[in-house]
Amino acid sequence: MSSYPLLDTIQSPAQLRELERKQLPQLADELRNFLVESVSRTGGHLSSNLGTIELTIALHYVYNTPEDRLVWDVGHQTYAHKILTGRREGMARLRMKDGVSGFPKRCESAYDTFGVGHSSTSISAALGMALAAKLKGEERRTVAIIGDGAMSAGQAFEALNNAGVADANMLVILNDNDMSISRPVGALNKYLARVLSGSTFNAARKAGEKVLSVSPSLLEFANRVEEHVKGLLTPGTLFEELGFNYIGPIDGHDLDSLVPTLQNLQKLRGPQFLHVITRKGQGYKLAEADPILYHGVSKFQPDIGIDESRTTAKPTFTQIFGDWLCDMAEIEPKLVAITPAMGEGSGMTRFAELFPARYFDVGIAEQHAVTFGAGLACEGMRPVVAIYSTFLQRGFDQLLHDVALQKLPVVFALDRGGVVGADGPTHHGCFDLSYVTCIPNMVVMTPSDENECRQMLTTACRSNAPCVVRYPRGAGIGAAIDPTLRELPIGKGEIRRQGTGTALLAFGTTLAPALDAAEVLDATVANMRFVKPIDRELILALAREHSLLVSIEENVVIGGAGSEVARVLEEAGSTARLVRIGLPDRFIEHGDQSRLLSELGLDKDGIVRSVLNHQHSQETP
Amino acid sequence: MSSYPLLDTIQSPAQLRELERKQLPQLADELRNFLVESVSRTGGHLSSNLGTIELTIALHYVYNTPEDRLVWDVGHQTYAHKILTGRREGMARLRMKDGVSGFPKRCESAYDTFGVGHSSTSISAALGMALAAKLKGEERRTVAIIGDGAMSAGQAFEALNNAGVADANMLVILNDNDMSISRPVGALNKYLARVLSGSTFNAARKAGEKVLSVSPSLLEFANRVEEHVKGLLTPGTLFEELGFNYIGPIDGHDLDSLVPTLQNLQKLRGPQFLHVITRKGQGYKLAEADPILYHGVSKFQPDIGIDESRTTAKPTFTQIFGDWLCDMAEIEPKLVAITPAMGEGSGMTRFAELFPARYFDVGIAEQHAVTFGAGLACEGMRPVVAIYSTFLQRGFDQLLHDVALQKLPVVFALDRGGVVGADGPTHHGCFDLSYVTCIPNMVVMTPSDENECRQMLTTACRSNAPCVVRYPRGAGIGAAIDPTLRELPIGKGEIRRQGTGTALLAFGTTLAPALDAAEVLDATVANMRFVKPIDRELILALAREHSLLVSIEENVVIGGAGSEVARVLEEAGSTARLVRIGLPDRFIEHGDQSRLLSELGLDKDGIVRSVLNHQHSQETP
Repeated sequence: MSSYPLLDTIQSPAQLRELERKQLPQLADELRNFLVESVSRTGGHLSSNLGTIELTIALHYVYNTPEDRLVWDVGHQTYAHKILTGRREGMARLRMKDGVSGFPKRCESAYDTFGVGHSSTSISAALGMALAAKLKGEERRTVAIIGDGAMSAGQAFEALNNAGVADANMLVILNDNDMSISRPVGALNKYLARVLSGSTFNAARKAGEKVLSVSPSLLEFANRVEEHVKGLLTPGTLFEELGFNYIGPIDGHDLDSLVPTLQNLQKLRGPQFLHVITRKGQGYKLAEADPILYHGVSKFQPDIGIDESRTTAKPTFTQIFGDWLCDMAEIEPKLVAITPAMGEGSGMTRFAELFPARYFDVGIAEQHAVTFGAGLACEGMRPVVAIYSTFLQRGFDQLLHDVALQKLPVVFALDRGGVVGADGPTHHGCFDLSYVTCIPNMVVMTPSDENECRQMLTTACRSNAPCVVRYPRGAGIGAAIDPTLRELPIGKGEIRRQGTGTALLAFGTTLAPALDAAEVLDATVANMRFVKPIDRELILALAREHSLLVSIEENVVIGGAGSEVARVLEEAGSTARLVRIGLPDRFIEHGDQSRLLSELGLDKDGIVRSVLNHQHSQETP
Repeated sequence: MSSYPLLDTIQSPAQLRELERKQLPQLADELRNFLVESVSRTGGHLSSNLGTIELTIALHYVYNTPEDRLVWDVGHQTYAHKILTGRREGMARLRMKDGVSGFPKRCESAYDTFGVGHSSTSISAALGMALAAKLKGEERRTVAIIGDGAMSAGQAFEALNNAGVADANMLVILNDNDMSISRPVGALNKYLARVLSGSTFNAARKAGEKVLSVSPSLLEFANRVEEHVKGLLTPGTLFEELGFNYIGPIDGHDLDSLVPTLQNLQKLRGPQFLHVITRKGQGYKLAEADPILYHGVSKFQPDIGIDESRTTAKPTFTQIFGDWLCDMAEIEPKLVAITPAMGEGSGMTRFAELFPARYFDVGIAEQHAVTFGAGLACEGMRPVVAIYSTFLQRGFDQLLHDVALQKLPVVFALDRGGVVGADGPTHHGCFDLSYVTCIPNMVVMTPSDENECRQMLTTACRSNAPCVVRYPRGAGIGAAIDPTLRELPIGKGEIRRQGTGTALLAFGTTLAPALDAAEVLDATVANMRFVKPIDRELILALAREHSLLVSIEENVVIGGAGSEVARVLEEAGSTARLVRIGLPDRFIEHGDQSRLLSELGLDKDGIVRSVLNHQHSQETP
């Protein structure tokens, strides 16, 4: 007999809505067990998904999905949603090539109303949908579900600020689990904790009830100061001030609270706000005990849990950065480090322990993180902003104006540059070389191996310019690390192999496959190191000695490193041919990182193929 | 005798601090008169500067500037600050080439602690400075001064959220003048209006006092619900909830309130929040009556005011857009228009009057504006986001993920592309072709004249792709407007002049000087129209027939339109030489728009010079 008798009957939310309410807890149990088993076999996000099982069931039970719109924020908590909306079998290939995405995706299902990945977009999108429904005279409901971490980002506030005065029928559900990926920080979170601690809430309610019951004159008082007394009786003042009708907090694992509350909310018009308390990892003891460890997991045995002793043979670039940060901080007292809520992911745990006063986790707030770094640099500090390539997109304007325009020496340790793998298009760092290189005053470095990464970080920290050091997800070639903190000359590449006819100009970790390919092609190989300032002399020397130059980068070919090589050749009037190898002008789906790189022609074979293709089929116009 | 006897004695804030407090109102009067006279002769921002005269005097009087740090948000309200910090004479060349900038600028003065231009960065920067002082054991004070409009942007919230829990001695002054550039919108503003209306504030205070005076048991009640009762007695609950000590509101034109309040605040530790009420245009009747008209002015006669009847001979691109928007909305009921607080500047006043239900001013909230548009597009609407090139930098990630990745048909009417003139480096739109073209799925159009702008907007609105139509500040060549709404074929340019040897590939309004230059050079001229998809066939045809191709664009040469031309030639293995004319890889200072373009080589003479230089001095490697 199936371990999931009830779940087996649910192929769609319509079938879910035919269940009796009392059956829902059993469904939640089965869904939870299925989820742990499934994720333990595929890897993926776990803690967040365990925390939203009841909420997901309640939402699809109460709302008429997909006609009513559920807009999930971030989206790594939507596995239950995917399972209940016909994608249970797909979970076996979660985040694998051609398999189900780890995030909602419009092209994957009508139930995925909005593609997400980065945080804090849900209220904006839901407001757009709700106002569209209003303009079209459609009666559907729109619900945004957003975590407390995501709520601290500026865009969520912008959207609340707008939604609170827009005449839209929408519900914002704050999924308050006291945790983004890192531990939450910031005043909003403190505020939510105060609300939940009950000390204010309960004291206020009891005191208020008591006083109101004995003194009728206070009723008049209450009316006259209506809004603020509302703050006495309900804890959502902050959201009420922004124009929402605040309901909560309620227990997000109690279907007997969730279902009737949602049913009531469905009937209300205007902007509604429901505060739901959930627990990441709920129902799986190991994840409850360490939700950060179980946030994103590889395969594991459900009964044993994650084997933390298993270490990879080679350190990741993230670890190289984390070690460098501690070493550099030892000798550079002005060094401070900033993370937008990704301390663990960026390898900063040890730094945070060793140098707590110089560690700033600003929450999910990339814009603020960048300008905050600029402010620190104004006063002579050496800020290092550790940020994923894809997340710096959120701080583009701040990078341009607050850092580059003012030539402030802020170091950007840009992790996850290039293809990241299973997280897919919202997390690949495919565009950074383009959007950073077009900014004046920037120094842009791409380390080819771990030791060079360390040297480049040192170079950046000792330079007076705004610098980006961009490295990929995962481990490199396992280069030996020089413990001394050495600098590299800015703007200088190096020849790594002398060949004939063709020169491969490798940026970053494309150096390793380029060297391999060069053995087949007998090509010269340059480790370019710098995208900006690019090594003009080296390029022109190579152009003089070779008939074909091939630039290789793990970035879109539009406006990236190869584009700078082309410009150097153009300006010098060089007749050398250039071929650019890089990521194509399309979004890249999720899948295994090295397999993706291979398919995209960025491995040894791909490089060989590109060069031979070009040599064999040159068309002259 | 001088009209400014007291002001004449103030060359620096140190001298200001030697005045007696009772002299300050006279100084304010003189400063105000000087400012109106000065701006009437140079043009510049007026209303905002008249509103901050007393606040500026009080800040420099109380704080030990520049040792204490004043961080102004946006910065177009800092003329009084500039005058009091030794730049009074420079005001005669305000916003002109090599003259004083219209914004604070670190390289201009030690008193300009942080360069600004875009809104809502001040709290982030000030927090960085305050924490740097703390880490270095320095006792200086840091003050951020931010308007209510800027406070609605996400970054301000991110910074407040972080500052409210950071142990930093800083003061945030909310300069509440109930107006950003457009009329303010949003829940935060409604909240502030409620605070100020006094209905809540005064009723609460009076009720509270009265009740507290008769019922001692209420004191106990007050203690038990401390935080919320604070909300009863002071109106700043929202900011208190975010961890700030809220003081205010106080009259920002009353030096007898401002000076002692700031003196008291100086002694307090931790995050402080002062709510100051000012009036844009204060003291100049015409500006008080119409602060939006007097927000940014050209030269005018102070006693007569702005002559609104004076119209320019040729309509601006902004007006062309505004007219198109109304015409298109007539026949396309799904069209909706979004502005991040720049409705007037973007030419949307008439649309807002004619189609109020389809007009969304979301406040200074570019991130939200873009995703909100994506949400509307999900439901089949035709959103047009009207936004300045430089401000779209704030929504880069949202453009990439929420619009382009999902292939949602949002139209971006990108105004102020290229060099804007007097506003300088923070407002030039020099980077958009680079940061937009690297994004997959985007269609990027650059109209060469007004009528083509209208055709491209129509094309965008009828396309199923995310589209950018990018046009410059000011008027074009005065092309006749075809009232019919016609489309252009996507990805197709046109030959506008046939010549020999050299082909000029003009993008956008560089077509006019290119045509002029071609007469001198006997060059072929192509109006390229599309940066993406670029007209590959046209480029290769030109490459076959000409020895030299010259791309011309008003965008940085890194990663822009010329870069795409280079890529087409590369991919085809073409041997044609390419020269890129565009903006250089540095930030461009403020100055007269056409003079800047001329200095940057983007006028007829510059194009001729570039081509001849290239022809005469080709170096072959």
